[in-house]
Amino acid sequence: MTERIDLAKTLQMLGQAEDILLICHKNPDGDTLGSAGALQHALQAQGKRVAIFCSDKIAEKYGYMQLALYDGSWEPGYVVAVDVAGIQLFGEAASGYLKRVDLCIDHHPSNAGYAEATMLEEDSAATAEIIYQLIGMMGIEMTKVMADCLYTGISTDTGCFKFTNTTPRTHRIAAELMEQGADFVRLNEVLFESKSQQRLAIERIALSHLEYHFDNRCALMYVTREEIERTGVENSDLEGITSIPRMIEGVVVGITMRQLESGSYKVSVRTSGNIDACKICAALGGGGHIRAAGCEFFGNLENAKAAVLAEVKKQI
Amino acid sequence: MTERIDLAKTLQMLGQAEDILLICHKNPDGDTLGSAGALQHALQAQGKRVAIFCSDKIAEKYGYMQLALYDGSWEPGYVVAVDVAGIQLFGEAASGYLKRVDLCIDHHPSNAGYAEATMLEEDSAATAEIIYQLIGMMGIEMTKVMADCLYTGISTDTGCFKFTNTTPRTHRIAAELMEQGADFVRLNEVLFESKSQQRLAIERIALSHLEYHFDNRCALMYVTREEIERTGVENSDLEGITSIPRMIEGVVVGITMRQLESGSYKVSVRTSGNIDACKICAALGGGGHIRAAGCEFFGNLENAKAAVLAEVKKQI
Repeated sequence: MTERIDLAKTLQMLGQAEDILLICHKNPDGDTLGSAGALQHALQAQGKRVAIFCSDKIAEKYGYMQLALYDGSWEPGYVVAVDVAGIQLFGEAASGYLKRVDLCIDHHPSNAGYAEATMLEEDSAATAEIIYQLIGMMGIEMTKVMADCLYTGISTDTGCFKFTNTTPRTHRIAAELMEQGADFVRLNEVLFESKSQQRLAIERIALSHLEYHFDNRCALMYVTREEIERTGVENSDLEGITSIPRMIEGVVVGITMRQLESGSYKVSVRTSGNIDACKICAALGGGGHIRAAGCEFFGNLENAKAAVLAEVKKQI
Repeated sequence: MTERIDLAKTLQMLGQAEDILLICHKNPDGDTLGSAGALQHALQAQGKRVAIFCSDKIAEKYGYMQLALYDGSWEPGYVVAVDVAGIQLFGEAASGYLKRVDLCIDHHPSNAGYAEATMLEEDSAATAEIIYQLIGMMGIEMTKVMADCLYTGISTDTGCFKFTNTTPRTHRIAAELMEQGADFVRLNEVLFESKSQQRLAIERIALSHLEYHFDNRCALMYVTREEIERTGVENSDLEGITSIPRMIEGVVVGITMRQLESGSYKVSVRTSGNIDACKICAALGGGGHIRAAGCEFFGNLENAKAAVLAEVKKQI
């Protein structure tokens, strides 16, 4: 059973800690990295040895955070999980630390309470909001790099102030971070406003294959392997196009089909309203969530389309 | 020569005015409509007769603003241009009011000073920030519909807090508007996460005309009148595609050219880094902001392209 602690106690525990290892969740996003990064810089300003560990590779675009990645040259004396809701999110490489997480700082309501002590603030839009408060209480100067890290956490976890978790406090903290030098224009460009030439090229092709079904309530688009290879788009880049069909006004089921190297089709289903994407995909051997699910087809394009549309018809 | 006035004087003039007509700029966006809408509701709360006039059709998605559109049944006693930088932005249908604009409330640095009196606050991210202050000074209650209108103006003019015009004050006002009931999740869905079938169709066509210049640092795309009409896309919908070329990785100048009914081309320039979009467009008889500017060309497509690219070359 974890001990739930408040900000003051968290500050006290961090103050007593030495040789601190900050752990981020796997598939790291802007909040786990930005929160850990700001905390790293703050603890360093207090003269402490601190480093960050993440099971997965950190994208180059986050270079501005100046993260001090753990190099194994010293033994951690205190382990802090930052924005990590459960032990399954540590990832393989970080699993060695699972038996001794001293502190967890998080905002996920689903936090499993796996750490010795947990500072959980569920109404924070991002863990970065909690770190922001901690740094304010530390009595150290909020530097530009800390502000950049925290702005990143807040901006990514709220979809740039669009998601339902955004609160008035979120905006007020963003205002303060801007005043501390957060380079919000460049950060948002890096985080949200950037597409590769290849991504735009495949978008154009996918849109050229856009078709509507069921009285325009379902939109479907596809890209063949040959088209994917012609544009040179990377898989991580390709993922993003799956949100396009569902964005169309009136569309409640958006389907994107992309051909894999094997020749089969990976089908991504995105829904809104009362339509359950998972039901559609589960009937075809796949799975996922209510709003986003997927499955795979080994037939040709026309057969795959017909099968998916038949399942959509049952749900729509 | 216009008289530059402050917020207090603006409030005084509005207080003395009766039968007020609020004029929005042509191709109306969220800021001109949201600012006029909030002001309309505020003046109505003071018991005044007030209506809104715009040369162009207002998109259905703005229905939540509950705009009182001018029906011609009464004679305006006082004319206020809201977020209209110059007389060329009135549009044909509003040109009758040009000779007697009593007041202009605006935030564009390029404001031409065409009104009798001008309340210009250039460091406001949106005209909605000015209206927010005015309503606060009026001593009336900020209602939910006013908050929705003002949030719309701020959110659209800052690209949801991403653009360089965003200030700490912008975020603090957003926080206040959320507390007054602005339905920010739904608004942002409507404003940013939803596209018409026509919009997607014109995006596909524009992308098919995408070309790169100056070592891929400039991307240009265009749509002809015939293409616009074939898709049936509305002007308000067309506006959004202007952000696409600048989004491309490595691109610092993004240009979108769309043919008007007259046959001439409307050119939208979006920049990042140190490139001044306004300089490019000013050299071609247009204007705007550092990151976003526009101009118009009466030549054919190839001539227009060549002229714009020549100016880009000087700045890039």
